Amino acid sequence: QMEEYSVVGKSLPRIDALEKVTGQARYGADMALPGMLYGKVLRSPFPHARILNIDTSRAERLPGVRAIVTGKDLPGKKVGFIPATRDLPPLAWDKVRFIGEGVAGVAAIDEDIAWEALDLIKVEYEPLEAVFDPIKAMEPGAPRIHDHVENNISFKSVMSFGDIEQAFKEADHIREDTFVTQPMTHGFIEPHAILATYDSTGKLTLYGNKQSPYIVYRQVAMGLDIPLSKVRIVQTHVGGGFGGKHEPYYLDFAAALLAKKTGRPVKIVDTQEEVIIAGRQRHPMTMQVKTAMKKDGTILGCYVKNIADGGAYSSVGALSLSIPGLVMSLPYRLPNMKYEGYRVYTNKPFCGALRGHCIPQFRFAVESQLDMIAHDLGIDQVEIRLKNAVKPDEVTVSGLKVTTCQLDRCIKEAASSVNWWERKNNLPPYRGIGYACGALASGARLMGHSASSAMIKVHEDGAVTLLTGSTDVGQGSNTVLSQILAEELGIALDDVRISLVESEITPIDPGTFGARVTFCSGNAVKVAALDAKKQLLEVAAEALEANPEDIVFRNRKVFVKGSPDRGMPFDQLVRLAQYQKATPIMGRGVYTPDLAVPDFLTGKGNMSLAYTFAAQVAEVEVDPETGKVKIHKMTFSHDCGFAINPMSVEGQLEGGLTMMLGQAFYEDIIRDNGQTLNPNFLDYKMPTVMDTPLEVVPLLVEGPDPEGPYGAKEAGEGTTVGTIPAITNAIYHATGIRIKELPITPEAILKALAEKG
Amino acid sequence: QMEEYSVVGKSLPRIDALEKVTGQARYGADMALPGMLYGKVLRSPFPHARILNIDTSRAERLPGVRAIVTGKDLPGKKVGFIPATRDLPPLAWDKVRFIGEGVAGVAAIDEDIAWEALDLIKVEYEPLEAVFDPIKAMEPGAPRIHDHVENNISFKSVMSFGDIEQAFKEADHIREDTFVTQPMTHGFIEPHAILATYDSTGKLTLYGNKQSPYIVYRQVAMGLDIPLSKVRIVQTHVGGGFGGKHEPYYLDFAAALLAKKTGRPVKIVDTQEEVIIAGRQRHPMTMQVKTAMKKDGTILGCYVKNIADGGAYSSVGALSLSIPGLVMSLPYRLPNMKYEGYRVYTNKPFCGALRGHCIPQFRFAVESQLDMIAHDLGIDQVEIRLKNAVKPDEVTVSGLKVTTCQLDRCIKEAASSVNWWERKNNLPPYRGIGYACGALASGARLMGHSASSAMIKVHEDGAVTLLTGSTDVGQGSNTVLSQILAEELGIALDDVRISLVESEITPIDPGTFGARVTFCSGNAVKVAALDAKKQLLEVAAEALEANPEDIVFRNRKVFVKGSPDRGMPFDQLVRLAQYQKATPIMGRGVYTPDLAVPDFLTGKGNMSLAYTFAAQVAEVEVDPETGKVKIHKMTFSHDCGFAINPMSVEGQLEGGLTMMLGQAFYEDIIRDNGQTLNPNFLDYKMPTVMDTPLEVVPLLVEGPDPEGPYGAKEAGEGTTVGTIPAITNAIYHATGIRIKELPITPEAILKALAEKG
Repeated sequence: QMEEYSVVGKSLPRIDALEKVTGQARYGADMALPGMLYGKVLRSPFPHARILNIDTSRAERLPGVRAIVTGKDLPGKKVGFIPATRDLPPLAWDKVRFIGEGVAGVAAIDEDIAWEALDLIKVEYEPLEAVFDPIKAMEPGAPRIHDHVENNISFKSVMSFGDIEQAFKEADHIREDTFVTQPMTHGFIEPHAILATYDSTGKLTLYGNKQSPYIVYRQVAMGLDIPLSKVRIVQTHVGGGFGGKHEPYYLDFAAALLAKKTGRPVKIVDTQEEVIIAGRQRHPMTMQVKTAMKKDGTILGCYVKNIADGGAYSSVGALSLSIPGLVMSLPYRLPNMKYEGYRVYTNKPFCGALRGHCIPQFRFAVESQLDMIAHDLGIDQVEIRLKNAVKPDEVTVSGLKVTTCQLDRCIKEAASSVNWWERKNNLPPYRGIGYACGALASGARLMGHSASSAMIKVHEDGAVTLLTGSTDVGQGSNTVLSQILAEELGIALDDVRISLVESEITPIDPGTFGARVTFCSGNAVKVAALDAKKQLLEVAAEALEANPEDIVFRNRKVFVKGSPDRGMPFDQLVRLAQYQKATPIMGRGVYTPDLAVPDFLTGKGNMSLAYTFAAQVAEVEVDPETGKVKIHKMTFSHDCGFAINPMSVEGQLEGGLTMMLGQAFYEDIIRDNGQTLNPNFLDYKMPTVMDTPLEVVPLLVEGPDPEGPYGAKEAGEGTTVGTIPAITNAIYHATGIRIKELPITPEAILKALAEKG
Repeated sequence: QMEEYSVVGKSLPRIDALEKVTGQARYGADMALPGMLYGKVLRSPFPHARILNIDTSRAERLPGVRAIVTGKDLPGKKVGFIPATRDLPPLAWDKVRFIGEGVAGVAAIDEDIAWEALDLIKVEYEPLEAVFDPIKAMEPGAPRIHDHVENNISFKSVMSFGDIEQAFKEADHIREDTFVTQPMTHGFIEPHAILATYDSTGKLTLYGNKQSPYIVYRQVAMGLDIPLSKVRIVQTHVGGGFGGKHEPYYLDFAAALLAKKTGRPVKIVDTQEEVIIAGRQRHPMTMQVKTAMKKDGTILGCYVKNIADGGAYSSVGALSLSIPGLVMSLPYRLPNMKYEGYRVYTNKPFCGALRGHCIPQFRFAVESQLDMIAHDLGIDQVEIRLKNAVKPDEVTVSGLKVTTCQLDRCIKEAASSVNWWERKNNLPPYRGIGYACGALASGARLMGHSASSAMIKVHEDGAVTLLTGSTDVGQGSNTVLSQILAEELGIALDDVRISLVESEITPIDPGTFGARVTFCSGNAVKVAALDAKKQLLEVAAEALEANPEDIVFRNRKVFVKGSPDRGMPFDQLVRLAQYQKATPIMGRGVYTPDLAVPDFLTGKGNMSLAYTFAAQVAEVEVDPETGKVKIHKMTFSHDCGFAINPMSVEGQLEGGLTMMLGQAFYEDIIRDNGQTLNPNFLDYKMPTVMDTPLEVVPLLVEGPDPEGPYGAKEAGEGTTVGTIPAITNAIYHATGIRIKELPITPEAILKALAEKG
């Protein structure tokens, strides 16, 4: 299998590694233009208040201040990803709805003056009653956060397939449990940064560290009320996104308005404090899970009611709350299911996408409960999972069409790797092993934003420039896309030049989300490469007097199959085309999964043309004295189809694990009446390398998918979903303590141990 | 004819007019980057000398100096457009060959310090004997300027078709005359400017006012010995090119080396003095013309020996010297011809392309002589031209394939417009009218550089971005290309966004030369538009339930032919494609004239798929007291095929006229032993608006060409070629004085009048 490829399937170092480790790569805050001003955003000190007046006169008189803008410069404007839930003012103009909401922007000759000017802006507020708890927010008489939304329910989804009531009637065993998860920030090291400038044609250019430049592009045009083609987003390197750099932030709108007003470039860089207090974050969820079982361990049905605290605005929250329901019928056969998702407004920073996009929380709940059910029924954890695991070419109750599926192998290989059956009964005290599985859509098609496109331009020296709107926010996708391109044209990875996104020029691609870059953008790149290859093949066939189908591109050479001497170097062929045949070589590729976009509200439809499956086994040790949990070993198996860059897939597995360790043990946004109390990385704890498992065993379970490029499926988010329940199940195994609320603190462990006696 | 189009065929204002007249457009010298240094180039004070040593130590110690580079940083490198004549060191490293040659570069914190540092660089030269006269340079024993070239003949072309000796034998009348033209600079107002910077991947970016960025790109890579794909040329607006901004200059190489050495952006802006002393310029020529005639006015044959003073290096000179021969068999039937072109090295600034590229000089000679012949034979000037004019669908003796040809109409319409026959015999004393014709290749295919390509990206708001490597250096071609794109997609001119060239991203196009942009790039844009339209048609046909061939794109609407109600706005169709069909719309177009590249040395081959033809009539008055010539009226007729923007074609006619008035009367580079004595626009005279004719009558003689976009042929250079002889012939008509040497000075007129008595 592997030997047929030269570039894909190899653990090649990242193409951007050198510039990144030497500090040469330019990130958002590195951008500068001559004559540039520095901006800051004034933020609301109230969780809920009406804006009565804004007096900027004192601030304007401060020497060095060049302009001040407020929400009144964009009155009535609201933006958002999903047409039905566009509720976010670019800057607040009538009310503020959380502490940290952007109210005004200042541009000054340096950042200190901009900060000082913020203090001189006098905003007259009329404080309103605020609500912070989603359950209370839904009650009659609760403060209404948005005038047009009753009960503060910003989104509700009900997905019902099969007959869940009948399942409960027929069940031998029913369990009902409630699980609670916490708010969490993305924890990217690089804060938001933007440099806005208008050119001589009146076009706005935003240089910034954007994860999905085309989403920003649309929302900026919407918020500023200018034509899309008058906005240009130029992407810098991105120091981590994880779902937090999809949409525009206050600084983007403020910088654009300030650049317009001053006629000068304006840069705004948020502090980490601003990043943490001003959203978007992971949705905290309260999930009631009720499952119907046959006594032999067959799942008959599952009902989940999921109430999420959305915060003050919608962001992509309608999507977030539908996702658990959309993939609920995987990875286990579920003949009957019902999912109810509620996203509730509260006067807090608002939530959106974060790696795994609500599935890690959801799987924490259902995999924990399955562990409990297995104990209830006296069935082995691996057996119960194998018994219910979906198989290839199945259609689930909600209509998901599974094609390739290595879940069986994933479960078995992870179990064998840790010697599950022997080990589970032979551990020292306070040691435990836990098991969990997961599944994810590979390249979800959600909304109309999922067409990927790519363009390649072949240079006269044999190098190739790849233009794509897809983004590498640190996951290494530019390396993977370059490998695909290099493989297809038979050139070396070094020969590929990949540009960062420039929205006017690079072909449209939704960016990094939904575990889609390798799968969707990868396919678009492959199509573009084949298009260019076809153009080159015509020239080569004529020059080599051979049939196009007999010509091979490999190792920077083009030759007749079986006769490596009948050929020429790749760059020579390009020049032959360019000069003798006057044919500049340009390839174009478009890819979108050929399926119906699933319905948010009802869950009808198929999310993806390929699903990934995974199993994880955690081995933990609980210290009964301190309540601390040490992870001895974490074993992952992941059905990635085909690993285009195995090292990169392993990196994703390890990165996903570490991130989920954060949610499991450390991370939590603590608030008091809407005020964030730990908006910095000293008080908001993230795992360090000292907190990672002593041993990590990644198992790549390949089985090429016919739809994926070279058979590849996603490996960026599916790697995160089983980590937390594998750990909580291992803690139960070690101590008999059942964790139903995150994060798992030493205090909670000690308290539970004490209660248990 | 016209009514079938909405956007082409209209005199629309230039798309860049507003930003240019308001001073917002950014030209070369406007570029700036943070941390930028300022550079200058040290130039040779000797016309010919060996470089023995360069001591930069004192200059390096000057506070504020950051780096110094010399030709020794690129030892042995030579660049040039034509492989056989690559003789130009990026910076001189062994010898200097003219006063002004680049020897070293300095980067400093400001330009004053850079200038000061130049004075502190001590170059030890060994002066060598220099030669300034091309005739002397060819003599045995003359100083050898380049070691590998004997007799200093850098290029020789002999083009012989038919039997010229036989023609002279059969002739009733033979004339032999010698004509001499002067050196001339392009006279663009914006000097060369470059900003060089290296990015974190080691890629060199040059921001500059380049007329042919892809030519610069290739030569910069060649000179610096780096891969092509590690060089990126980003074009700024260009304040005039006229053939003078095709190739890289010393500042480009110096800035690149200095940026590399300092790790900082380096900007160098030449002064006008540097532009004038350091080439490239119009070739001064000495043309011996011998013509064989039948007494009825039929031309039997013509022999031209053309010796051009090329200066110290080749530039595109081999091409320059072949061009008069390549088009010699137009616009008059020439059954026998012989052309010998010699380009000779001298120790002077070197020559290259300038608007019309040697044809204006050549036509000054042959049209003057034809005037003399008509007088000799007693035939009317218009009659003799009509008698010999080529007709449509003729193949000339040298193999040029004429397709569309309105020469007959051009000659007649110009003559009728001025009432030629009546007026020529009824003018007051010292008034005269003169007649001349010309022809030009429209979109010449020369070398392998002539494939044009274009890419378009259709935005969701119905705007379209056009990417092309072609350049608008002031001629208005971006407006014309945008008109073509808008027409094809049925949108408005305002909907088109056109980017300046960014060599890594924009599709390859040779740039502005050879009168090719409207014809070649225009065709590429049309193909790209049709490609995008095809993608949109599929979506439209399905949505409108119609056949693709019945769908019309017009006025920002897409509808079924004959049923304007069955349709939708263009932008809605784009969104339908983008969102519902997940098809980002991108069009790709390539065009190159389908013909054999003509041979420089022998003239065999066809230059172009379309030729333009023109006639001009000048009416002048000579002041016998002062020797000054006043142009009362200039009438042009130009066979432009189809005027995509008539106002723009008229602008080209008027601009070409004014430029040629400069060569006729004012412009001349005066030198003493290789030292330029008038390197500024006070001493180097160019015509002002006060010097333009009292009346200019442009006559667009249309007749759509099947190969041109919408039938268009060139209108940028063919407009220049008949101006000078029309004037000199009119002066003869007014005074009996025959001008055989340019420029026509009052002194020469007075002297000739005195001699004539």
